[in-house]
Amino acid sequence: MSERKLRLGAFIQATGHHIAAWRHPGSQADSGTNIDHYQQVAQIAERGLFDLVFLADSPGIYARGDDAARSRYGRIATFEPVTLFAALAATTRHIGFVATDSTTYNEPWLLARKFASLDHISKGRAAWNVVTTGNEQAAGNFGQAEHLAHALRYERAEEFLDVVTGLWDSFDDDAFARDKASGVYFDPDKLHTLNHKGKHFSVTGPLNISRPPQGHPVIVQAGSSDAGRELAARTAEVIFAAWQTLEEAQAFYRDVKGRLARYGRSPDDLKIMPGLSAVVGRTQEEAEAYNRQLQDLIHPDVGISILQPFFPGVDLTAYDLDGPLPPFAANTNGTTSRLALVTDLAQRGDLTLRQLYENLAGARGHRVVVGTPEKIADEIQLWFENEAADGFNIMPPVLPESLDLFVELVIPELQRRGLFRTEYEGATLRENLGLRRPASRYAVTDEVRRSA
Amino acid sequence: MSERKLRLGAFIQATGHHIAAWRHPGSQADSGTNIDHYQQVAQIAERGLFDLVFLADSPGIYARGDDAARSRYGRIATFEPVTLFAALAATTRHIGFVATDSTTYNEPWLLARKFASLDHISKGRAAWNVVTTGNEQAAGNFGQAEHLAHALRYERAEEFLDVVTGLWDSFDDDAFARDKASGVYFDPDKLHTLNHKGKHFSVTGPLNISRPPQGHPVIVQAGSSDAGRELAARTAEVIFAAWQTLEEAQAFYRDVKGRLARYGRSPDDLKIMPGLSAVVGRTQEEAEAYNRQLQDLIHPDVGISILQPFFPGVDLTAYDLDGPLPPFAANTNGTTSRLALVTDLAQRGDLTLRQLYENLAGARGHRVVVGTPEKIADEIQLWFENEAADGFNIMPPVLPESLDLFVELVIPELQRRGLFRTEYEGATLRENLGLRRPASRYAVTDEVRRSA
Repeated sequence: MSERKLRLGAFIQATGHHIAAWRHPGSQADSGTNIDHYQQVAQIAERGLFDLVFLADSPGIYARGDDAARSRYGRIATFEPVTLFAALAATTRHIGFVATDSTTYNEPWLLARKFASLDHISKGRAAWNVVTTGNEQAAGNFGQAEHLAHALRYERAEEFLDVVTGLWDSFDDDAFARDKASGVYFDPDKLHTLNHKGKHFSVTGPLNISRPPQGHPVIVQAGSSDAGRELAARTAEVIFAAWQTLEEAQAFYRDVKGRLARYGRSPDDLKIMPGLSAVVGRTQEEAEAYNRQLQDLIHPDVGISILQPFFPGVDLTAYDLDGPLPPFAANTNGTTSRLALVTDLAQRGDLTLRQLYENLAGARGHRVVVGTPEKIADEIQLWFENEAADGFNIMPPVLPESLDLFVELVIPELQRRGLFRTEYEGATLRENLGLRRPASRYAVTDEVRRSA
Repeated sequence: MSERKLRLGAFIQATGHHIAAWRHPGSQADSGTNIDHYQQVAQIAERGLFDLVFLADSPGIYARGDDAARSRYGRIATFEPVTLFAALAATTRHIGFVATDSTTYNEPWLLARKFASLDHISKGRAAWNVVTTGNEQAAGNFGQAEHLAHALRYERAEEFLDVVTGLWDSFDDDAFARDKASGVYFDPDKLHTLNHKGKHFSVTGPLNISRPPQGHPVIVQAGSSDAGRELAARTAEVIFAAWQTLEEAQAFYRDVKGRLARYGRSPDDLKIMPGLSAVVGRTQEEAEAYNRQLQDLIHPDVGISILQPFFPGVDLTAYDLDGPLPPFAANTNGTTSRLALVTDLAQRGDLTLRQLYENLAGARGHRVVVGTPEKIADEIQLWFENEAADGFNIMPPVLPESLDLFVELVIPELQRRGLFRTEYEGATLRENLGLRRPASRYAVTDEVRRSA
C-alpha cells in the first residue's frame, strides 16, 4: 500500500468531454444550463469520494468553423462556474469546487470577493483555476481591440494573483470578537488595507469579507508553457496538465517540482493532476464498443472544424476524410499539449483525417484510456507510483453516465489496491488534498508589532 | 377585498436593519458570512409567501468614523449577493432573489452572465437591483483616482443596462433544437451578436448562456433623484424607495408612474415598494419595549458616526448627547431620502443628538412602525390603497427574530384582510410579481426576416 494518497478530480463539463457526448443516449443534452444535472453529477462525484469537481470556462462563446459546424457544438451555453458551485455547495458536504476564472478579463477586487464568498458558503471547499484566457474572441467583450500577448497575460496574472491573495488577508483570522456585551465587533488593528500600486493594478482594499475558511481558496493552474510553469511553481497548489505518455508526464513532473525550492516551497505543496479520459467497460470489448459508438456520432463538419486551426492555409474540406493527411505545418494558436499531440500523430504518417480528429475528440489532447476497471487502475497506478502524477482529473466522456460507471467500477478497484481513500479525511478541500492552510501575509508583521 | 395584489419583499441584511441589531440576543452576530443563517432566513421568508428577498451591496468596505466607532459596526464582512443567492436557490422553491450590483464598478458582459446564470440556477427567480454606487471609497478598489460624478454614473448606468439586456437576448428562446438524431444542437440564425459600441462600452457579444428563464431577470432600482426616476421609468420593474409620510410617498408614486407612458409602458409594469421597518409586538407595549431595548444598545460612538456626515465642519463629539442639536446646514453626501429625514427632524428644533441618531438607527431613513400586527397592517393597507405603494420591502430590525415574528403575526393579518396571497401564484419571480416576460429585442427583426 502506498503511503502517498491519490488525488482525484472530476472534470464535469456539461454533457461530457467527448465532443459528440451530447448526442449519446447517456447524456443530458441541455446539461450546460440544467441545475438538476449538475446537482446529480456533484453527488455522484461525492459518492465516489472525489477530492473535487472542476469546470473550465472562458469569457466568450466557444464554437468553431462555419455555421453548419457551430450548430453541432453542444457546449455553447453554460453556467458561470462560481454561481453554479455556490448552488452545488448547498447540496453537498465534502467535495471541493474548482472554478476557472480569467486574470485577463476581471477586476481582482471582484474576483477576490467572489471566491472568498464561495469559500465561506461551502465552508472551505473553494478553489480557483487561474487562467489567462486563450480564447481570442473574448477581448471584444471587454472593449479591447485585441487579446493581450502571452507574455503580458502572464505578467498581469502574476500581479493579479498577488493582489487577490493580499485582499483575502484583509482581515486576520481572529479579527472578529463579536462581543455582544461590550459592543466591540472587530479589532481594527486586525484589518489590513492593501494599498497595492503596480504596473497593471492599483487596488486600495480592504476586502469586505472575513478571511476565507481555508485562508486562501486553493490555487489551481493548467499552463504548460515556461511562463506557466514558473507561475505555477511560485503560486499554484494543484496543476491540471495534459500528457499522453508516461515519459512526458515524468519530465513535466520533475521539472515543475524542481522549480519549487527556489520559492521556499516543498514538493508536497503542489499536486500534479493530469487529465485522463477513462472510457470504462466491464470488458475490453464493451469499452471499445462504447468508444466506437461515440466516435461514430462525430459529424464530419465538427471533426474538420477542430482540426482546421492546425492546418493554416489549407482547406481541409477539400480532402477525403478517409484518405491521407494534407501537408502539415506546426503553426497554430492551439495549446501546447494539443499541438504536440497533433504533431506526433501527423508525423506518424499513416493516419487519415477522420482518425486524426477522432484522436482529439475524446478529451482535446488529454490521454484517453479505453478498457476495464483493472486496466484503468493499472494506468493510474503506474503514473502515480512513478513520479508522473499525484492524482488525476478524470474527464468522463459522457455525463452523468461515464462518471457513474467510474464510481461504480474504478473507484472500488483503486480502493482495493490501497491507492484511494475509503472516506473523506478532512473538512475542507485543503485538508482532503493534504495542502497546508496559508498564513496571512500580515502574520509576521502582526507578531512583530504585538511584541514591540 | 382588493383586486390588486400586495407585493412583499424581505430585505435580509446580515444581523438585521437596526444598527445595533448584532448586539441583540435575537440576532446571529456572525450572520454576514454565515450560510446557515441565510438559509434559515430565506426559508422563513418563503414560509411567509414573500415575493422576494433583497440584499444591498457595495464594492468596498462600509464603516464610518474613527477606529473606535468602526470597531462597533456589525455589517463589515458580508457575502457577495449573487453567490449567496445561488446557494439559497438550491434550498428554496418559490422565493425571488434581488441582488444589488454596481454599474460603475463592473463589466457588463460579466454581470450579464452572472445574473443569467442565477436566473437559470433558480429557474426564473433572479432580479438585479441596479445601483451606481454611493460609496466613494469604492473607486480606489478599481484603480480610479475618484468616484465618478452623479450625472456620469447615471449616463453609464443607462448604457450598461442597454448592453446587459442586449446580451441576455443573445440566444432566442427557441434557439436550441438539441436534436440527438440529426446532430443539430442550435440554430445559428437564432444567435445574435450584439456589436455594441457606445460612449462607455464596446461589447461584441454574444453571451455564452441561453436566454434566462424570465427573458430578463427582473430589474430593480432605488434612486430617488430626477436622473434615478427617469432611468427607473425607462427600465425598472420594481422600485425600492424610502419615504416617511403618506404624502411624500404618494407624490413619488404619481410622479414615477406618470413618467412611464413616454416609454410606452403601463403603470402596472413598475411596482413601487418602499422600505418599512416593522417592530412588531403582540401588544403596543411589547413592541415599544423591544424598540427601546434596541435603541439602548447603540453605542454613542456609533450614533455620532452616522450623524457626523450631516454636520460638515462641526465636531459632534464636543456636544452633549442629551442637549440641543448643534447648528445644522443641509450640506451632505448622504442619500436624498436620508437627508430629507435629517433636515425635517433637525428643523423641528426640539430633538437631542441622541434622539436624532435613534431616528436614523432603525432603518437608515426608511419608515419605522412600532406596534401590533393590526397597527402595522393598517399602515400597509393605507399606503397600498391610496396610491403610495404597490407593496413594501420589509426591513426586519433583528434577523432572524423579527422576520419570524412578522411571518407569524403580520402576514396572517394581511391575509385575513384579503390583501396578501395565501399561496404562490406563479413559478417565476415575474409571475409572482405580476410582471410581463420581456420579448427579445430581436423578436421583431426575426419575424420580419422569417416572413421575407
